[in-house]
Amino acid sequence: MRSVSKEAVAVAGAHALVDRALVIPYNDLMFAPDVYARRRARFLEVLHQRGIVTGHFILLGNNDAPRNYPSNCYRFRQDSSWLYLVGLALPSLALSLDIERGETVLYADPIGIDDIIWTGALPSPLDLAAQAGIERSAERSALRALVERATRAGDPIYILPPYRADQVAYMGELFGAEASAPGAALARHLDPRVIQSIVELREIKDAEEIAEIEKAVTLTAAIHQDILRDLRPGWTEKRAADYVLSRAAVRGCELSFPTIATCRGEVLHNAPTEYVSAEGDTFLLDAGAEVPSGYAGDLTTSFPVGTRFDPRARDIYTALRKAFEVATASLAPGVRFIDVHKKTSIAIAEGLTLLGIMRGDPREAVEAGAHALFFPHGLGHQIGLDVHDMEALGEDFVGYGEELSRSAQFGLRSLRLAKTLKPGMVHSVEPGIYFIPQLVRKWRTDRICTTFINYDIVESWMAVRGLRIEEDWCVTESGARRLGPAFDKSVDALESARSTI
Amino acid sequence: MRSVSKEAVAVAGAHALVDRALVIPYNDLMFAPDVYARRRARFLEVLHQRGIVTGHFILLGNNDAPRNYPSNCYRFRQDSSWLYLVGLALPSLALSLDIERGETVLYADPIGIDDIIWTGALPSPLDLAAQAGIERSAERSALRALVERATRAGDPIYILPPYRADQVAYMGELFGAEASAPGAALARHLDPRVIQSIVELREIKDAEEIAEIEKAVTLTAAIHQDILRDLRPGWTEKRAADYVLSRAAVRGCELSFPTIATCRGEVLHNAPTEYVSAEGDTFLLDAGAEVPSGYAGDLTTSFPVGTRFDPRARDIYTALRKAFEVATASLAPGVRFIDVHKKTSIAIAEGLTLLGIMRGDPREAVEAGAHALFFPHGLGHQIGLDVHDMEALGEDFVGYGEELSRSAQFGLRSLRLAKTLKPGMVHSVEPGIYFIPQLVRKWRTDRICTTFINYDIVESWMAVRGLRIEEDWCVTESGARRLGPAFDKSVDALESARSTI
Repeated sequence: MRSVSKEAVAVAGAHALVDRALVIPYNDLMFAPDVYARRRARFLEVLHQRGIVTGHFILLGNNDAPRNYPSNCYRFRQDSSWLYLVGLALPSLALSLDIERGETVLYADPIGIDDIIWTGALPSPLDLAAQAGIERSAERSALRALVERATRAGDPIYILPPYRADQVAYMGELFGAEASAPGAALARHLDPRVIQSIVELREIKDAEEIAEIEKAVTLTAAIHQDILRDLRPGWTEKRAADYVLSRAAVRGCELSFPTIATCRGEVLHNAPTEYVSAEGDTFLLDAGAEVPSGYAGDLTTSFPVGTRFDPRARDIYTALRKAFEVATASLAPGVRFIDVHKKTSIAIAEGLTLLGIMRGDPREAVEAGAHALFFPHGLGHQIGLDVHDMEALGEDFVGYGEELSRSAQFGLRSLRLAKTLKPGMVHSVEPGIYFIPQLVRKWRTDRICTTFINYDIVESWMAVRGLRIEEDWCVTESGARRLGPAFDKSVDALESARSTI
Repeated sequence: MRSVSKEAVAVAGAHALVDRALVIPYNDLMFAPDVYARRRARFLEVLHQRGIVTGHFILLGNNDAPRNYPSNCYRFRQDSSWLYLVGLALPSLALSLDIERGETVLYADPIGIDDIIWTGALPSPLDLAAQAGIERSAERSALRALVERATRAGDPIYILPPYRADQVAYMGELFGAEASAPGAALARHLDPRVIQSIVELREIKDAEEIAEIEKAVTLTAAIHQDILRDLRPGWTEKRAADYVLSRAAVRGCELSFPTIATCRGEVLHNAPTEYVSAEGDTFLLDAGAEVPSGYAGDLTTSFPVGTRFDPRARDIYTALRKAFEVATASLAPGVRFIDVHKKTSIAIAEGLTLLGIMRGDPREAVEAGAHALFFPHGLGHQIGLDVHDMEALGEDFVGYGEELSRSAQFGLRSLRLAKTLKPGMVHSVEPGIYFIPQLVRKWRTDRICTTFINYDIVESWMAVRGLRIEEDWCVTESGARRLGPAFDKSVDALESARSTI
């Protein structure tokens, strides 16, 4: 990583209460310029291999996003494909790539005296270009001229799918679309081969990227340890979520997604509420750090609010841990992740069968989709510059590729990652077991999978609510490796961590 | 304030290091339903007074704002005019108000089983409506039908100026605009009288609102005290800004705007950098808390990074404090804020004249705009549900109204608030003195105000960089009142606070 600041960063401080090793120094923003030049060259190669040999690729960096009025913006987040190909975490930039000649231009607005008074001396567009290994820069308005020239010449222009309305509006206007059908106008510039090319590059992480993700996972683990140590019965879910944010901020990182901090784990994407946690509850924290370079971590820890798991929660947690180990033991290059998901589902069904909650043959139960009443989501997703990596490009491109198509079965249809694992892929492993009242009621009423589910017994387990375990793994040449520090999530280790509250 | 949670919130915790009294309990989200009904009734009255007696007013709540992919969103922030008229800090809501009949409808999407599985049981649209004192709710699609009916009938539809691109696109489509001119299509629905009516209501805060702002200022002061106590030489600006965020999060509030945390106060809206603070620097923190109800605080503290101010910084700070006291002593109902700004500017010119930096008659210097080399911004802005209150509606409506128009003179043209103060108005008071190298160089080269500025002497003060003091004040029937706790910002008090580092 290239050093931005000249001096080491002091991290002492009476009130920070953070281990020095677990604080991000602020000089880890970008890789060296040639990293980006190499990635763009490789991108061109892959485009050519897929038959895209002429025209222009236009990439927009993100703009500032207004919060409650135009000049009061959210903390800037650069687009992830931009971070991959260009770096430069600054708003209002654009890039064009001549697919035939390989020429790259960075577009940036010029800097005036007012900018200097209000926001300080900024690097010039040419300085910025150099940091990204680009030789040419131009004013933003030149991008419009390029599009007009290309349109006149009949040269194709390719873009990536926009996910922010300002970019849709800008490109709609750039390409002369009507507001009533901006999607259709932009669709002319979206080519699956371009998306496949980006995914092909981004989904294989090199050593430098894995090191960044590992930093993010290490910080994430530290934040999870903080709350495992500090949460007290009486804290609301919101207070716990705010505490997570405060611990991320003290460590110099952001959160990679909105924190799930809940005593009601059965609500899969629960926004933290006023619910006051109490002895007997199980707390579920699903939260991740994002390091300054943009890479994400993503862990889930389920632990007792008191000093001990409730006995029924302990039984379910133990079954979940076994299934989790089946999952991580199955990871290897050449293995399809959908098969790991299925193996894990069978292990969950086995565990629930031993407890009398399910019945019959666990394999048959999983074929029928019965386990999905308790495990309605997928086993994992890729992780990188996005916590659901590359999700803006389309989940199926990222998780299924050209080899597989998505199932329509309840549960399996929520599986984000199904494709064959390759060395350098980084992904989460996150099985869960849930008792969702509305879903149980609906299935029972509709008499779904009655062969495999003991609905009468299910009722007595509802108070367990929902548990999940999540780690981040990297596929290697010979198998797979857990990222981040050792973090024992056995019942004993968690109860021991909670024994001092 | 209406209680949302049933139980008091425990705020103890070994590692929180926060005074219990300075933590926001999470039950302060909305006022009682009749508050909103009353505000809407008053809004209708004012519209009628201004000659708008038929048609419909359509208000859109904010949507979730995507960060790095569609489903990974920033922390939701509701629109402030929506918070004022409806409350309900939830995404994807809309409201229509029949201006003639006074009938209000809340539009919300219905809730399905998938929503319940993924995000938990949510209040129904009718439940939401009741919380906002509204009797009718409808599905979001009914809003389109209303617009079509009104358009056919020739009834006018009024909106507020949108500031997020998704709202521009939605309304452009709703009103049948072309992408190439969505602004023009929406402009047909923007009426200055509607904006004036909202401003007339929002700019006078009632006792409940002032109590909320005072909570925000109290939390803001606590966060400033944290950093005044904890910052150490060697901290980078970014580390300080992250520390501010962590202290806000621990207290259960958000930040009302991006923190300015800098040793280079002369850069007015400096984004925190890798700069490593050192003894001899003066640190400038301009940061504010936002309480869960949405109201903002906004304070600026300038203090030594070491234990003592640099002697030149002390001289400038002392001059600034005097000007600050001139400003706050001048606040009263009936006084035009532009006149307070001018008095303060004269006091700054007097102070700089005593130090030999300026010369000649301070009044004449201010008439000529010479002081603006050192004080190039305005004295303050209104504060409420936005830290620059109502800025989305247009700065001139908020700060100048119908009585005044904005000056074109450098410095004065940046004055956000100029109009006559009235009881219930809340605003910042924030004079500053800056030595901006690029600006000094430009003025000197262009020989601007040489009668009033000793350019040779200015050079020896450049290392002071920039200082600012900011408090939040409320205009009363008889004068004005500082909001928040006592916070002594004298040289002695600040140096005493820093003596323990």
